[in-house]
Amino acid sequence: MGSPALIPTVAGVRAWRAMRLRDNASVAMVPTMGNLHAGHAALIDAARQRADFVIVSIFVNPTQFGPGEDYESYPRTLEHDRELAGEHDADAIFAPTVAEMYPHGPENPVRVQMPAELTDQLCGAQRPGHFTGVASVVTRLLNIAQPEYALFGEKDYQQLLVIRRLAEDLFIDIEIIGVPTVRETDGLAMSSRNQYLTANEREQAPALYRALVAARDAVRGGAQIAQAEADGRAALAAAGFEPEYFEVRHGGTLGVPRAGEPRVILAAGWLGKARLIDNIRID
Amino acid sequence: MGSPALIPTVAGVRAWRAMRLRDNASVAMVPTMGNLHAGHAALIDAARQRADFVIVSIFVNPTQFGPGEDYESYPRTLEHDRELAGEHDADAIFAPTVAEMYPHGPENPVRVQMPAELTDQLCGAQRPGHFTGVASVVTRLLNIAQPEYALFGEKDYQQLLVIRRLAEDLFIDIEIIGVPTVRETDGLAMSSRNQYLTANEREQAPALYRALVAARDAVRGGAQIAQAEADGRAALAAAGFEPEYFEVRHGGTLGVPRAGEPRVILAAGWLGKARLIDNIRID
Repeated sequence: MGSPALIPTVAGVRAWRAMRLRDNASVAMVPTMGNLHAGHAALIDAARQRADFVIVSIFVNPTQFGPGEDYESYPRTLEHDRELAGEHDADAIFAPTVAEMYPHGPENPVRVQMPAELTDQLCGAQRPGHFTGVASVVTRLLNIAQPEYALFGEKDYQQLLVIRRLAEDLFIDIEIIGVPTVRETDGLAMSSRNQYLTANEREQAPALYRALVAARDAVRGGAQIAQAEADGRAALAAAGFEPEYFEVRHGGTLGVPRAGEPRVILAAGWLGKARLIDNIRID
Repeated sequence: MGSPALIPTVAGVRAWRAMRLRDNASVAMVPTMGNLHAGHAALIDAARQRADFVIVSIFVNPTQFGPGEDYESYPRTLEHDRELAGEHDADAIFAPTVAEMYPHGPENPVRVQMPAELTDQLCGAQRPGHFTGVASVVTRLLNIAQPEYALFGEKDYQQLLVIRRLAEDLFIDIEIIGVPTVRETDGLAMSSRNQYLTANEREQAPALYRALVAARDAVRGGAQIAQAEADGRAALAAAGFEPEYFEVRHGGTLGVPRAGEPRVILAAGWLGKARLIDNIRID
């Protein structure tokens, strides 16, 4: 478990990939924005199980941040990240500059735009352009590294569906793998944005997951959907959150679920300077 | 020179491609909308010179046609196309249905959107959404067949620049090759849409190329750009065209060329039911 190779350029990744192809070795990619934590470690571990080689990308993608969002302040911790990736036996880290990823500039790039039905709601409604930015950078990362597998966390549930649809609809030759959310012992989903919480807020933060568990149990117990959603929002507000959404949706399309279809509850809210999201399956 | 294999499915192309990969054979792709003519034959011949295997795609892509355009009436001549592709030694034809190319339907697909500076002018200004449709289908075709080379005609000059930018900016691992326009003996650029011309219009049609040649010679001889453009439009109108544009542009960016930069003249106009386009290099 040495330190992973640090590759800053597209050409470097291509050369690294060509050696794997020559050896008929498979590659799994873990796209991240860095500031790696136990959630990312689980992605790397899952990648390790699938493929002969694991490449982690670390890129804080400007095109998925809106005006006034935390692009500038997003934590950048490359040395720490390289260490953690090494501990989990990643083989390479692709850490490009913005100019490397957007050779014609990030202001007016070729954009990959998702169907509105997937992205005009939930996080997409709150963050216009966010999923276009995500799809645009993930398409680039997958085209650069050409991995057999790419792994994404289920915490960002809507993002995972967006990327599945992206790969499917554009015929990107890859298997997209979702990895279950890793939680602190008190239930809070691991997230780089948890760092923005004050000590007080950190104590309140697990209320998000508790509200999701309560709503899941209520719906399973026969509660009305609308009531469970309202109770969830109220629980968030009572814990000091400014709730954004708390919604029961179809687990595959994010549409309104009909009887017998798999359901997921998705929630988002602000706690101080941190926008936290989480989700839980009902069925 | 047997008949090329006819492959209707993505899975079929993937299997065909996997056999080529196994043999370390290279693949060149010629994306077309079918109704093949001598211009396409030149693309296939050029592909033949580059790669071990040549695959021609034939797909009239609904997402690049605007309302009221000729999607329904666009000529579909698969048997003829297969014969011509065979005469030029193509190995395979990929001829998918719309449902095969757009598994979630063509109305609301994942879209690849080009930077406005490349597509809000010339043909793009006349045909809103056209180049988004082109980029969206070409991305799919290249992802499906994963060729080392793809060949496009220089007749569709703006399209060629769009596809080069697409491949570059999304890091599609491919070499895009432009092939010079093939002309009738009277100078008319080969195009499937020439079939829409009446006998009379067909006699007038070479005026488009003649106007381009005259403008090129005038600019080379020191004429003012604006004058050459106005004369070009006048020449088209005199020949019975309804001119759309006649513009001297930078050959690489389609912007306004500065001194010493390579220039191209691009023109489009309607002759009866046919929208004809053509271009010529100055430098």
